[in-house]
Amino acid sequence: MPRTTLITDIASLVTNDPAQGDGTPLGLMTDAAVVIEGETVAWVGPAAKAPSADETYDAAGRAAIPGFVDSHSHLVFAGDRTQEFNARMSGRAYEAGGIRTTVAATRAATDATLEANLTHYLEEALRQGTTTFETKSGYGLNTEDESRALRIAARHTDEVTFLGAHIVSPDYAEDPAAYVDLVTGEMLDACAPHARWIDVFCEKGAFDGDQARAILTAGKAKGLHPRIHANQLSYGPGVQLAVELDAASADHCTHLTDADVDALAQGNTVATLLPGAEFSTRAEWPDARRLLDAGATVALSTDCNPGSSFTSSVPFCIALAVRDMGMTPDEALWSATAGGAAALRRTDVGRVTVGARADLALLNAPSHVHLAYRPGVPLVSEVWRKGTRVA
Amino acid sequence: MPRTTLITDIASLVTNDPAQGDGTPLGLMTDAAVVIEGETVAWVGPAAKAPSADETYDAAGRAAIPGFVDSHSHLVFAGDRTQEFNARMSGRAYEAGGIRTTVAATRAATDATLEANLTHYLEEALRQGTTTFETKSGYGLNTEDESRALRIAARHTDEVTFLGAHIVSPDYAEDPAAYVDLVTGEMLDACAPHARWIDVFCEKGAFDGDQARAILTAGKAKGLHPRIHANQLSYGPGVQLAVELDAASADHCTHLTDADVDALAQGNTVATLLPGAEFSTRAEWPDARRLLDAGATVALSTDCNPGSSFTSSVPFCIALAVRDMGMTPDEALWSATAGGAAALRRTDVGRVTVGARADLALLNAPSHVHLAYRPGVPLVSEVWRKGTRVA
Ligand SMILES: [Zn+2]
Ligand SMILES: [Zn+2]
Repeated sequence: MPRTTLITDIASLVTNDPAQGDGTPLGLMTDAAVVIEGETVAWVGPAAKAPSADETYDAAGRAAIPGFVDSHSHLVFAGDRTQEFNARMSGRAYEAGGIRTTVAATRAATDATLEANLTHYLEEALRQGTTTFETKSGYGLNTEDESRALRIAARHTDEVTFLGAHIVSPDYAEDPAAYVDLVTGEMLDACAPHARWIDVFCEKGAFDGDQARAILTAGKAKGLHPRIHANQLSYGPGVQLAVELDAASADHCTHLTDADVDALAQGNTVATLLPGAEFSTRAEWPDARRLLDAGATVALSTDCNPGSSFTSSVPFCIALAVRDMGMTPDEALWSATAGGAAALRRTDVGRVTVGARADLALLNAPSHVHLAYRPGVPLVSEVWRKGTRVA
Repeated sequence: MPRTTLITDIASLVTNDPAQGDGTPLGLMTDAAVVIEGETVAWVGPAAKAPSADETYDAAGRAAIPGFVDSHSHLVFAGDRTQEFNARMSGRAYEAGGIRTTVAATRAATDATLEANLTHYLEEALRQGTTTFETKSGYGLNTEDESRALRIAARHTDEVTFLGAHIVSPDYAEDPAAYVDLVTGEMLDACAPHARWIDVFCEKGAFDGDQARAILTAGKAKGLHPRIHANQLSYGPGVQLAVELDAASADHCTHLTDADVDALAQGNTVATLLPGAEFSTRAEWPDARRLLDAGATVALSTDCNPGSSFTSSVPFCIALAVRDMGMTPDEALWSATAGGAAALRRTDVGRVTVGARADLALLNAPSHVHLAYRPGVPLVSEVWRKGTRVA
């Protein structure tokens, strides 16, 4: 029999099961307990009725939430872009290499460096409550370095995304069409075995709608499922393409027409909002309220990357979503857990229900609302992942 | 001889001594080391030339900064205002009691509860790098509970502020003048022995310029030094009164006329900006750039309190100041350390220089810029306070 752990005296437990507790989407239970058996949740209910277990952990009146599901990050890279950030925020001119700077550093790095960096950021995220994460390639931009990034990522998560189409490789600056051929041909062949997802940055200056369609369609033919960087910097075809191709997620969604919102509300594609990017680039906020009111499913993720959003903190993103994107504290918490799971088409994570993976976080606070009410404060105290206490 | 500790291999050290390192106000040194002797800094210089010490701590290429000086907080209180925050952020009507809610809970709390709460928030702040903090009364609003708050605060910091004039006590709602008489009479007599500072909330609906002048003048006569909540919600006389009375600080400074800015630039009063308040109330940002360009001294603090800014995170305030208030990452770091010290008229803290109190923090990052570049991420890893490692 696997070992059992009882976590008891939870003042407020977010289950994300509307059949539980207060009947809201959060399925909020008070004075609750959870029993973990091996890697999964075996029992959820009132603390007063909890069964005994091999081990007992006293939450001492704190809140518990499902571990965060960060469905959008770019963590296989080397170097950082401190000088570029500093210059931008100080109003100084700076010959910014942008993504190209990170591509050069990533190509030049050893496997060991890339893996050490990835591990560093994953541990940092884990301490902040993130128990499931997606991560992408996209700083290799050639067959060898893209497939290398995916192999390294796959050692650490099942949610690996091939993003050869992050930007047109500087090696193909004069011939973008040839780069699309590479991404949909040799590079895809080398990368598909190591990834679950294929992604494209559909934006002016990156890939247009036709190119994005070609790339995602080629990926689907190789067994990858699509997701897409869509409508971040300007209006464009990305969101509707995502819905048409049944992408799991359209990410960013900052510039949306009514038709885009309708498409998301009607389709099976989650709108993943990434407020860390708007924060760090002083850009306009995505309108979560408009999407929620239309009936779209919204996820909230970090977009952690060294250029435009170098935060690994889901709690920070929750605070921004509540302040600036029209989400309630309850909606933001749901989007960062169950919403992230939906954006990865997962039902085993992002919830604290019997049979789900035992991923949960205790907060140094009596309720999940404090994640927005106490912005910037590291409130995540203990974290369990697959039933094991990891922080 | 007091015990000595060498902290070495510091990639980037903020000293706040412009005679050091790169000659900027931050006095930034690379490849540096610090020797602590007892409670003070005994040596600062290049790691390669560091003397030996009883104990060596390897910073392993991370950044070090002076401990933060949080010169504005309200931490002697009971209860919180989660429901009020949640309703405000969810767009729901709520009969908000505002400060009165906290006054009622604070009056009803035991000394032990108040001290446990204070200790909880101080430890939380310390883990985030705050090694000096000011805190205020202001949730008692009668002689007994105001003096009780100050006695409790004084067990934990030298920087204690009497804020009987936070709002007109609900007990005197019909007779504000009588409340001013109480604050400047019996309450002041009971409170002055336990405080260094006197403060007043000069704002429409709280205390007007004449009342504020009477309160601060009475406090000065009892040996307290003035500071003032000024120009937060609207234009008003607070800032110019602060400069006229040689207040150490005018706090908030969100609504300033050109004459207010000139007064701050000419006088000895620090402008303390509190972006946590604007964040949590969705208010207009104070314009730090305008103050800095005029030549005013700017401090950056949390305003940590359960109503309008429930953050204890100085790094979070730095990130906001850089994004939304026109401060460079360097200026924001200076304001949160040396600026806070200036707002408390202290020269022994907020810097890493020979003879200063040995208060410093190591970051899980190679530079202080990362505090803004990596918003929300708990980057403070180790903290020394008075020469002792406390986190
Ligand atoms: Zn991205
Ligand atoms: Zn205040």
